[in-house]
Amino acid sequence: MAPLSSYVSGAWHVPADEGAPLRDAVTGAEIARISSTGVDFGAALDHGRRVGGPVLRELTFHQRAALLKALASELRGHRDELYDLSLRTGATLGDAKFDVDGGIGVLFSYASKGRRELPAGTVYVEGGLEPLSKGGGFVGQHICTPLLGVAVQINAFNFPVWGPLEKLAPAFLAGVPSLVKPAGQTAYLTARLVELIIESGLLPEGSLQLVCGDAGDLLDHLTEQDLVAFTGSATTAALLRAHPVVVARSVRFNAEADSLNCSILGPDVRPGDPEFEVFVGQLVTEMTVKAGQKCTAIRRALVPAEIIDEVEQAVAARLADVTVGNPADPGVKMGALAGLGQREEVRRSLKALSVATRMVFGDPDRVEVVDADAELGAFMSPILLRADDPDRDEPHEVEAFGPVSTLFPYTSPGHAVELAARGRGSLAGSIVTADPDFARDMVLGVAPWHGRLLVVDAETAGESTGHGSPMPALVHGGPGRAGGGEEMGGIRGVLHHMQRTAVQASPRMLTALTGRWTPGTERRTGDVHPFRKHLGELRVGDTVVAGPRTVTLADIEHFAEFTGDTFYAHTDDEAARANPFFDGRVAHGYLILSFAAGLFVHPDPGPVLANYGLENLRFLTPVYPGDELTVTLTAKRIEPRQGADYGEVRWDADVTKQDGSSVAKYDVLTLVANGEQ
Amino acid sequence: MAPLSSYVSGAWHVPADEGAPLRDAVTGAEIARISSTGVDFGAALDHGRRVGGPVLRELTFHQRAALLKALASELRGHRDELYDLSLRTGATLGDAKFDVDGGIGVLFSYASKGRRELPAGTVYVEGGLEPLSKGGGFVGQHICTPLLGVAVQINAFNFPVWGPLEKLAPAFLAGVPSLVKPAGQTAYLTARLVELIIESGLLPEGSLQLVCGDAGDLLDHLTEQDLVAFTGSATTAALLRAHPVVVARSVRFNAEADSLNCSILGPDVRPGDPEFEVFVGQLVTEMTVKAGQKCTAIRRALVPAEIIDEVEQAVAARLADVTVGNPADPGVKMGALAGLGQREEVRRSLKALSVATRMVFGDPDRVEVVDADAELGAFMSPILLRADDPDRDEPHEVEAFGPVSTLFPYTSPGHAVELAARGRGSLAGSIVTADPDFARDMVLGVAPWHGRLLVVDAETAGESTGHGSPMPALVHGGPGRAGGGEEMGGIRGVLHHMQRTAVQASPRMLTALTGRWTPGTERRTGDVHPFRKHLGELRVGDTVVAGPRTVTLADIEHFAEFTGDTFYAHTDDEAARANPFFDGRVAHGYLILSFAAGLFVHPDPGPVLANYGLENLRFLTPVYPGDELTVTLTAKRIEPRQGADYGEVRWDADVTKQDGSSVAKYDVLTLVANGEQ
Repeated sequence: MAPLSSYVSGAWHVPADEGAPLRDAVTGAEIARISSTGVDFGAALDHGRRVGGPVLRELTFHQRAALLKALASELRGHRDELYDLSLRTGATLGDAKFDVDGGIGVLFSYASKGRRELPAGTVYVEGGLEPLSKGGGFVGQHICTPLLGVAVQINAFNFPVWGPLEKLAPAFLAGVPSLVKPAGQTAYLTARLVELIIESGLLPEGSLQLVCGDAGDLLDHLTEQDLVAFTGSATTAALLRAHPVVVARSVRFNAEADSLNCSILGPDVRPGDPEFEVFVGQLVTEMTVKAGQKCTAIRRALVPAEIIDEVEQAVAARLADVTVGNPADPGVKMGALAGLGQREEVRRSLKALSVATRMVFGDPDRVEVVDADAELGAFMSPILLRADDPDRDEPHEVEAFGPVSTLFPYTSPGHAVELAARGRGSLAGSIVTADPDFARDMVLGVAPWHGRLLVVDAETAGESTGHGSPMPALVHGGPGRAGGGEEMGGIRGVLHHMQRTAVQASPRMLTALTGRWTPGTERRTGDVHPFRKHLGELRVGDTVVAGPRTVTLADIEHFAEFTGDTFYAHTDDEAARANPFFDGRVAHGYLILSFAAGLFVHPDPGPVLANYGLENLRFLTPVYPGDELTVTLTAKRIEPRQGADYGEVRWDADVTKQDGSSVAKYDVLTLVANGEQ
Repeated sequence: MAPLSSYVSGAWHVPADEGAPLRDAVTGAEIARISSTGVDFGAALDHGRRVGGPVLRELTFHQRAALLKALASELRGHRDELYDLSLRTGATLGDAKFDVDGGIGVLFSYASKGRRELPAGTVYVEGGLEPLSKGGGFVGQHICTPLLGVAVQINAFNFPVWGPLEKLAPAFLAGVPSLVKPAGQTAYLTARLVELIIESGLLPEGSLQLVCGDAGDLLDHLTEQDLVAFTGSATTAALLRAHPVVVARSVRFNAEADSLNCSILGPDVRPGDPEFEVFVGQLVTEMTVKAGQKCTAIRRALVPAEIIDEVEQAVAARLADVTVGNPADPGVKMGALAGLGQREEVRRSLKALSVATRMVFGDPDRVEVVDADAELGAFMSPILLRADDPDRDEPHEVEAFGPVSTLFPYTSPGHAVELAARGRGSLAGSIVTADPDFARDMVLGVAPWHGRLLVVDAETAGESTGHGSPMPALVHGGPGRAGGGEEMGGIRGVLHHMQRTAVQASPRMLTALTGRWTPGTERRTGDVHPFRKHLGELRVGDTVVAGPRTVTLADIEHFAEFTGDTFYAHTDDEAARANPFFDGRVAHGYLILSFAAGLFVHPDPGPVLANYGLENLRFLTPVYPGDELTVTLTAKRIEPRQGADYGEVRWDADVTKQDGSSVAKYDVLTLVANGEQ
């Protein structure tokens, strides 16, 4: 059998030796061999840095997002092939969809976030402007720029498609090339995935590389600009984190390790309540999806001591209905573990757990199997344990990475919080309750130990995305035992791949750097009203100054009457004076905005298509009858929209009165046509 | 001489032995002894976790901010004493102000940021709501809660006041207790600072502890909820980062190490230009402030090859004017290094640098000293080196942590970027130029290697906060050699001490958790208009629904005429139809806002004092003549203001039309009185 090739330095590398066998989880048959012998890791990293990085960094965020979207669509066309190959990992069709569709979903999600939440350019401007000097001539602004290295992505065996894609998407969007190293057991599936991506020709060369087999001396070649994202065991995470090169060069290291995640049943829930069914159903799902081989699976089910027997019976009854066997068989609910070695490890963990728990469902050594050979395939029965003494150490420390969960009785909400914390850091936790007060106490009590928490009640259970499903828009990771890392979380995951730099400069310099008009920079007024310029002509700094217009008492009274806004501050001089902020009747804020618009708009049809919103409006000084308003409107950001005939223009609006003081400041959001109308 | 006491577990601990001597940097006289013998580190951490943490977490962000402000004021009253003590570290009055006033400034800054940018409660809600289900019944929201451990803060010798305070402020504001371990040489100054703080009684017991002397087995007692913030050498940083407990428990570890920071002179600048003087002046300042013992000091000055001789002469001329000696003498510009050991280390580094540089000013073994004994005090001349071959390794790798800088010639902007990157990660860099294009190319070129970058030109030089000054609102830290960490940066530094948790729940549950009304939660309409309720009566979810009001063509025409907003989309049916978004004349966005306000306000004097702003306004559907508007206004956030008679109420406004579609959504910001008016 030919060993899997690696894709490095722009070519498929065939291993220099025959490698180690990879076996079908269901039949035990050899399906591929694996080896990284002969891969030049230093050269591969260099290729990513010198070929992939520069091309990626030339693309804007929106262009990268468009490529991710195209890639997602392309892969969607190959789902069936990936589902079929997934069967060999022991996964049912449902499991495979979780992995494959989940991974493609991450690409779509980042494509959409990239388009909506990142700028049209290549630099991410983060947070507000920080004034640094009294005169306003020196200001601070954080910017984020892509790291110049490679994102080394070391994945676990349980999600051979989702794992690589959820790491690739944010790195790619950031402008950082990826080097993917799948875990051995299921590397053939990741290898096929990468092959499909490379064949698609969608991603620039060097932006994605693949190493099948051992990581060799990969980490020795890391520099300060590379990063490592690891998913796997806590032991391996610790080894990599303390690697001398990682430490000496302060290489960004992100770990996501299995954890003993908990699900807590609220004391408000009684057997027969819909939340009771929700709790039991979710627990059984988490035990059996991917045969429990999920780093987010529920390992510890905390239930009120009074009803632990009822919970045990209900879970056991559901587990008895779980058909184990050949995942290709549509009647099978739970497939095989990833391999016989994996099953042995689960059995070892169960032995360690046996000192503090008793087995109330299942037998690690015996399982009835449909349409498969129970000896050749890595099958195992789901196993429910019960820790009658919930305060013993073992069941909070030993994880059996398979279809195994433990029930714990808790005696008070405080006890439940304590028990949850005994996991010493988790990726995900659930609270199943209909009581918002209990939910609040639990969430705030256990949040410091969790990267993600679900609150599930009967009303919303149908819409819940599930305990075990990391969501691209939410952070995935957790403190302590869970690795102390953070992946995804929408744009947060993109920024993990970028360097944040505080830039201190004059507003003028900052405008030149960011391409955004920074308050304090000179405004440019000219003969042409900026509303007469289409997107390609408009420049940041283009300004119209209009006014003054006097606000009369008659205006205020008329506006009150016309709009119905007869709030006392506009209509009742005495009441207005009693207000701590006003010296008498004041103009409506909405009147000021309306008059300002009346001053700055250009009436004729032209490239400005619509005002679609307003941001950061603050009324700063009251306007009294007789005050004269002037408005200054300056183009602040100009963002073309990929594939549209128009783009977004954000204008800085500053309404001042006769003494020069600002009455209102805000951003006006408009759509402006690209070309001549 | 009595050894310095440590403040641990609620008491001053006197060391069990006599400790090692600490010496006056100027006279060599013993001024204190230091030892941590007998300190129970495990108990101290436990004290922080069990006594300090819970009390801190009970306080709101605003209460913690108020304590920081009070502390800053208190310490300001003790500045003279701290200045005096600083003399013994070799610091001039100017140096001492940099340290002491800088530290107090960080407290004030965090007090202000805490009040303005953090909520009135104890939970930080981060980022937007993430929809997770089509029905909208399940949503995601990130929250940040304080870690339950202790922030172990290991500081460097060079900033014995600023160092502890810049680490304390964000930790305290987050609700996390601190344990401060100063470096030996100058620990007596930090000890006095902590004594002043403890004596003030302002901070809750357990929120600040002090260990003078070795860290002993401190790190062995860390848990997953503790964190370590280290400032010092890269070597020590690497040791601590790889500490088995730090690694095994994924302890958050932040390092800030010295780096070979650069200052780049633009090719546009000629001798005689004002930027030339700015560059030379800033370099000399950075070489001599704190006798060059600043992790942010300029070690590498990159100048166009053509004018390196002129730069060398100008710098040398300025250095010749620097008076070295007793820092108590007002005529002295540069004091002593922190100690004789420090001076020896600088001399050793200079030897290592000598293979690739030549010394063009100063002599490490000879310096003329004013009002002090050059043998007993740790005095050294400023030293200017020149690397005629700028591409040699040593001057980019070896740092002499004293009044030492090296001049490098560069031949092109690309070469300057390359040389800057040779530092392999820096805290701060400067670009001195009047050319915005050069500034942009440099900033974007070197940003991935920098935590902070200044662009300085003659115009703004007077307002510049200086290359070497970390600012509380900006991140302090840098990649690679600089430690790969990040401190301060405003609220970012607070969040470093908190766990980010993605909460998935129904809107109703999320409202209960966060205390903020989450869209999708039931709105509560009642007999009392919410504008009639003062802050204490108002509850999130309180709602007024008002309307409908029909928008007529006459309204639109009148509004156009009254305000002057005769934009074609409102006045010209044909032109409006030609617009891709409209099917004919549409109502003005500002007319919709005005009518909505007319519908929702309650006219009578009452607790609502003012509408001070608007956020996140989006116009979603065009409004045509004949459309009927209804507005729904719901109290979304209620934030009392510490020490004020009123608080801020943010309302969710949703304007819909007859078919139920949203026309506009926005947040209305109001001030509402606390009690009866």
